[in-house]
Amino acid sequence: MESYADRLVKSIDEKGNPCIVGLDPRLDQMPDFSISEDKHCSEAVSSSITEYHRTIIDAVRDIVPGLKLQIAFYEQYGLAGMEAFYETVRYAKKNGLIVIVDAKRNDIASTAQAYASAFLGRSSIFGNDEPIIDADCMTVSPYLGRDSIEPFVDACARYGKGIFILAKTSNPGSADLQDLEAGKERKRIYLHVAGMVNAYADKLIGSSGYSSIGAVVGATFPEEAKALRRLMPKSIFLVPGYGAQGGTALSAAACFNKDGYGAVVSASRILTYGFAKDTTKKQFIEGVRSRTEAMAKDIKEAIGAKG
Amino acid sequence: MESYADRLVKSIDEKGNPCIVGLDPRLDQMPDFSISEDKHCSEAVSSSITEYHRTIIDAVRDIVPGLKLQIAFYEQYGLAGMEAFYETVRYAKKNGLIVIVDAKRNDIASTAQAYASAFLGRSSIFGNDEPIIDADCMTVSPYLGRDSIEPFVDACARYGKGIFILAKTSNPGSADLQDLEAGKERKRIYLHVAGMVNAYADKLIGSSGYSSIGAVVGATFPEEAKALRRLMPKSIFLVPGYGAQGGTALSAAACFNKDGYGAVVSASRILTYGFAKDTTKKQFIEGVRSRTEAMAKDIKEAIGAKG
Repeated sequence: MESYADRLVKSIDEKGNPCIVGLDPRLDQMPDFSISEDKHCSEAVSSSITEYHRTIIDAVRDIVPGLKLQIAFYEQYGLAGMEAFYETVRYAKKNGLIVIVDAKRNDIASTAQAYASAFLGRSSIFGNDEPIIDADCMTVSPYLGRDSIEPFVDACARYGKGIFILAKTSNPGSADLQDLEAGKERKRIYLHVAGMVNAYADKLIGSSGYSSIGAVVGATFPEEAKALRRLMPKSIFLVPGYGAQGGTALSAAACFNKDGYGAVVSASRILTYGFAKDTTKKQFIEGVRSRTEAMAKDIKEAIGAKG
Repeated sequence: MESYADRLVKSIDEKGNPCIVGLDPRLDQMPDFSISEDKHCSEAVSSSITEYHRTIIDAVRDIVPGLKLQIAFYEQYGLAGMEAFYETVRYAKKNGLIVIVDAKRNDIASTAQAYASAFLGRSSIFGNDEPIIDADCMTVSPYLGRDSIEPFVDACARYGKGIFILAKTSNPGSADLQDLEAGKERKRIYLHVAGMVNAYADKLIGSSGYSSIGAVVGATFPEEAKALRRLMPKSIFLVPGYGAQGGTALSAAACFNKDGYGAVVSASRILTYGFAKDTTKKQFIEGVRSRTEAMAKDIKEAIGAKG
């Protein structure tokens, strides 16, 4: 079984691009072409989101290695949103894209096991082990400590999947707890998390040299990213915050190793929103594609300039 | 609009009991009476979980103030599990029970807003603001800091809802980050979180004197609970860990104020599992009810002894 890290690195190579598109459904900001004609129909929410995301996937499938689905934006639309989530995951996988679910789940061990089964592994349903979401990778919060992370690590080993553990997130409030200097060595909390990540990462290194256990490191904190890059040399970073949150290509580039690998940079709003309501499907496809190409160029130049 | 805290305190008074039942669907451990006859029918998962939880609600609705639904155990069964989740929330509310969803959600502000809409508030669907899960309360993780918590606090104020922010969780791994001594005062991370919780709590105090912004404090750490009780005098604690995780009534009692209020103690496995497969519905109802009554007696005696 090929490891998640190896599949991701291979896909980055094939597409020549370490940038991924984030999918955050916001019904009120989608162009009209994707909105179901009969809004009173019970399936209008699910079919509108699905159509919107299929269009994005069609626009970028040959130029990006994967997608990041922010599950909160699907959950906000209830069961209909979750139907669209499952349908989008299916369509992305069918198109050979790596599916990363940004879920930031975490709980005590027995509950973390249920989340790991839901997102990465299999669940026992009337005696049969069945895949549920079957994503390639998900994000995991570290607040509950090691025993809350291990069920996810085990699922990665067993099913060829990956996780990104939150280390230093892209938001301003990440300073509140993550930046506190703690413990005997008085090192910041996100560095403690990096130590945990690196220990798990060492156990799941693929033939690419990279591990399926990675970390979330915001593009908004380049100095912190440099320190984290040194502490977790084998981990791939999921790098949010480029664009709408103020992260630049230069700061995102700090998350890469000298070999040009080691991170995937994710952007959502700047790639898929801000289109006029009357944008046609064709214009939307061209727009999303050209924005995604521009971001890839920006990031690749910054990595090159740094290298 | 009555605040969440006031509704919870009133319900605790009416039932004369601060203990709540946790619902964690595990298909392979449910007695046969609740399992749908046609397991190959696409609705078998959802109808089995729903039947199981309706039976539990029927068994305890007059003796407990509320329920805690652990959403991970529903998510592990995919869309069918989520259908059962929505149906269980509906049935619990119809029976006048306070619904707490243990979801431990957290994300950057714009995403936290989507979670807050999903669980507590309303989502804009084709121009209409519609309730989605519409729970009374949910659990929230603090790892991303203040800006990640504020959208939940705002939803509590606007919709009369509540949150429990994770402070000191019940699992052994909670020591890994939560117990680290941090910052200038070298105080433990869970104490930093307590400071954040208390600041939010002060803004949402109801006529009961209690706030709708509470904290999760495990029944497994009584010394930590005493310190947290002093630091968050107006917050209600959600206390997991009694029973299966080794927490005792005496240690849970440390989470209560001298007025006998200030906490709800939750148990799941010890109340609803461990029944033989051939347990009849009648036996199951009697069993769940007598276990719940025994737990309530145990907790109330410990609060009284401490008083």
